[in-house]
Amino acid sequence: MYPFREGSFAVRNGWYVAAFRNELGRDLLARTILNQPVVLYRKEDGEAVAVGGRCPHRHFPLGKSCLKGDAIVCGYHGIAFGADGQCVDIPSQDVVPRAYKIPTYPLVEHGLWAWIWMGDADKADVALLPDLEEIGVTAAGMTARPFYVQEVQGRYQLLNDNLLDLSHLAFLHASSIGTVENAQAPEELVKRPGFLSCRRYIRNADAPAVMAASGRYAGKIDRVTGMDFYLPGFHAGIGDMAYPQDHPEHPGETIVTSRVYHAVTPATPGSCIYFFAMASEDVEGMDFMFDYLRPVLDEDKFATEEIEKMLAIIGENPDELLIKTDRNAVEGRRMLQAMMDAERREAAEAA
Amino acid sequence: MYPFREGSFAVRNGWYVAAFRNELGRDLLARTILNQPVVLYRKEDGEAVAVGGRCPHRHFPLGKSCLKGDAIVCGYHGIAFGADGQCVDIPSQDVVPRAYKIPTYPLVEHGLWAWIWMGDADKADVALLPDLEEIGVTAAGMTARPFYVQEVQGRYQLLNDNLLDLSHLAFLHASSIGTVENAQAPEELVKRPGFLSCRRYIRNADAPAVMAASGRYAGKIDRVTGMDFYLPGFHAGIGDMAYPQDHPEHPGETIVTSRVYHAVTPATPGSCIYFFAMASEDVEGMDFMFDYLRPVLDEDKFATEEIEKMLAIIGENPDELLIKTDRNAVEGRRMLQAMMDAERREAAEAA
Amino acid sequence: MYPFREGSFAVRNGWYVAAFRNELGRDLLARTILNQPVVLYRKEDGEAVAVGGRCPHRHFPLGKSCLKGDAIVCGYHGIAFGADGQCVDIPSQDVVPRAYKIPTYPLVEHGLWAWIWMGDADKADVALLPDLEEIGVTAAGMTARPFYVQEVQGRYQLLNDNLLDLSHLAFLHASSIGTVENAQAPEELVKRPGFLSCRRYIRNADAPAVMAASGRYAGKIDRVTGMDFYLPGFHAGIGDMAYPQDHPEHPGETIVTSRVYHAVTPATPGSCIYFFAMASEDVEGMDFMFDYLRPVLDEDKFATEEIEKMLAIIGENPDELLIKTDRNAVEGRRMLQAMMDAERREAAEAA
Repeated sequence: MYPFREGSFAVRNGWYVAAFRNELGRDLLARTILNQPVVLYRKEDGEAVAVGGRCPHRHFPLGKSCLKGDAIVCGYHGIAFGADGQCVDIPSQDVVPRAYKIPTYPLVEHGLWAWIWMGDADKADVALLPDLEEIGVTAAGMTARPFYVQEVQGRYQLLNDNLLDLSHLAFLHASSIGTVENAQAPEELVKRPGFLSCRRYIRNADAPAVMAASGRYAGKIDRVTGMDFYLPGFHAGIGDMAYPQDHPEHPGETIVTSRVYHAVTPATPGSCIYFFAMASEDVEGMDFMFDYLRPVLDEDKFATEEIEKMLAIIGENPDELLIKTDRNAVEGRRMLQAMMDAERREAAEAA
Repeated sequence: MYPFREGSFAVRNGWYVAAFRNELGRDLLARTILNQPVVLYRKEDGEAVAVGGRCPHRHFPLGKSCLKGDAIVCGYHGIAFGADGQCVDIPSQDVVPRAYKIPTYPLVEHGLWAWIWMGDADKADVALLPDLEEIGVTAAGMTARPFYVQEVQGRYQLLNDNLLDLSHLAFLHASSIGTVENAQAPEELVKRPGFLSCRRYIRNADAPAVMAASGRYAGKIDRVTGMDFYLPGFHAGIGDMAYPQDHPEHPGETIVTSRVYHAVTPATPGSCIYFFAMASEDVEGMDFMFDYLRPVLDEDKFATEEIEKMLAIIGENPDELLIKTDRNAVEGRRMLQAMMDAERREAAEAA
Repeated sequence: MYPFREGSFAVRNGWYVAAFRNELGRDLLARTILNQPVVLYRKEDGEAVAVGGRCPHRHFPLGKSCLKGDAIVCGYHGIAFGADGQCVDIPSQDVVPRAYKIPTYPLVEHGLWAWIWMGDADKADVALLPDLEEIGVTAAGMTARPFYVQEVQGRYQLLNDNLLDLSHLAFLHASSIGTVENAQAPEELVKRPGFLSCRRYIRNADAPAVMAASGRYAGKIDRVTGMDFYLPGFHAGIGDMAYPQDHPEHPGETIVTSRVYHAVTPATPGSCIYFFAMASEDVEGMDFMFDYLRPVLDEDKFATEEIEKMLAIIGENPDELLIKTDRNAVEGRRMLQAMMDAERREAAEAA
């Protein structure tokens, strides 16, 4: 499906964010991920687990059921499944067949997030997770905090496209975090397997509105913006601002260093789950940013949902006129498509 | 469609409940039954009738029109149809062609219900209706009363499946009418053409919560629960409770005898109409039950609608792991499928 | 699609009303017309223009963007398009390719309306627009005024069918503008290419309720009703009332002369835009009519939407029993189908 080949929905073998870690507890959390119902919870010993969200008996949603110890007891006929997916009780009979079970999914707590692997479990490799030091979550002096989770009524790639082309800051977010230089400054790209990075180095430009709004600084700044895409669904953004080199008092000194984290997880073909988090050296400033960025992120949600509606009218294969700043987004799409193609080939060979 | 073969929707030749009799009067009642628009009303002489709900001229809903004598006058261009379906007036012309008519459907008032036959009218046989004495509506000392009608946003068979497997009382209705014995007691089945019956005989078990809530009794009881399925869409349930045989004062005496009636009528492929009624020896107790059972029935509606949503995500052919208590539901599905297959063969032969 | 042949949606080469002229200004107006997103606005010099409503870069709705001078600046990445459709700015690069553009559509202000031509621009001929004198907009003594615009959730032809068969006044609008004679009086039709006209001459009949409601007259009247269909989507209606020839004081004198204008513009396959306007010699009376006719037009909207819902249940090819007064509607459908067939043939030959 657009912007991928017909029949290509999403990469299966990869880590997706299923939840913020602090969302997980003894209440069942139901999510649809890669078009599969999933239930997330913590066992009594605190371990976070993910299992299939459908009772195989009558398809009742296990996410609308309840926990008894470490087992989910289906709210319909009381069939119970352990955290290993194995059925542990069928109330109406004495024997529980070995084959009676639900899927389980590798789930890893790493940084602020619980990461799920919806594909072949034997390929789930924690070495493929983003390095926490690299993305700044555990970097010295930085404090990271989950901000928002929301369901977006648009296909996930529209949001990935958004994050892979930060020139949109100059317009969609012109009143808050962007300036015209976000579109105009040249962009440097770095690519390695499963990773795609872009940077813009902006010199002596007006500070974006957020700087004045937060009472920090209203003059000219040097700025580094960029986004590191850890395929298939995680983006770590960088937003560093410094006094310009010719500033009379603080030449080149850092004003603020922050990291933003966008995780985009495919839900259904027409919707996704969007997780936003932030890390900063300025812990107090985070409360301000929590309120300030909410409408900014809503602009991205708005754009995504409006485009989904547009596709519903004009169909799945719209003409598309690419421009130079699309290099990064196009590369991201290509890499995802290549991963999907490889998965399809493997599945065909295995069959 | 699930859980039937692809292309199989519902049995056509059979009596379905179209309405409670007390719903019918001189106001037009519009229902969608077996994916056909239907209008129900009483003629001036009180006779209840059912006709097609679409004006064949411009497809305006006759259910949104009005009655003039025994005829429905279409609200759009005034074309009028008698209770026999025959057009009786086309205001813009003098002659009414014989061929100008709408369908009529056999409709029989029987017990609390008005039963409709959507298939071949010449096969409509009142002998196929449930025997009122047998189901307890007219049994000595019993009073029957219609309770609720509601549209359920789920395919009808999900609700039939629900009613054919009463082990769900032990979980979905654990806080009201069920106890664990509803799942654990052995089930006895009886099958004859067009009829499927199940019974559980529970001895010396805790009374369900409803007994204490209604101020009747809170100790151990003997209990008979069961459901008689009169195919294709009517279930008569039995819920008798008695003091246990070893009760010091009333050994084996009846506490309460009641019958419940669930009619499930296919509306569209993804929705059905659900009629619930009750009969009891305890007339005063019925008011209490009317309020008490409403949220209980909502649990069944909830389960049905949640499963319909689940099927929308995972598709029409979900893996299904059956258990022993599914015997009755599976038998019910088989009998319905066999009826649909026979109808299809007959239609093919006739063509 | 019904009531046209499968695959036939709507005539492309023809003038449709895109907006009332007074809707157009310096705010972007987004409409879906013939299943295409369109944006309408006035240039700084006042000229009204229509361009495609989708940014070809990422499909963001240009109707949710903003104007800068005569150019629309996409709200997502700031790409700007002039009123001639040509891209005038891509903020992230210096060069704008010639091929970077959006569609433009001929748009003509004529009477109360802005008319759009969605088909081949070289065929857009203003001579095909309705003659303003003929339809009464510029006739001596007449004042014309736009009344309502609304989106109707039904396919456009249901509304055309409605307007091509005024016998519905006798029933759908029995409480306001119709009397039984609207169905019973004989109808005279006139047909010429692209034009279809019907008239009913009603003599010595009760005045419709609107006459008493507006305090004009409550006795018998002579009345001329009719509708002129300017294909593919404009209807000019006539509603003249006079004292009967045998009136003691004012024999044959005109009571009121008015024209009504219904424009029906296909939006999506299941929805249309409905523009209603009026012209009258009685300017003060127009305020009354503005309020009075709103619920009357809602009856047409209701009928259209109910029929669309009916089609959703019963499918695209419903049996249809035509009557004599359908002559005009059937002729209108035939003429539209013939225009669509001709367009398809031309397209096939061109390919």
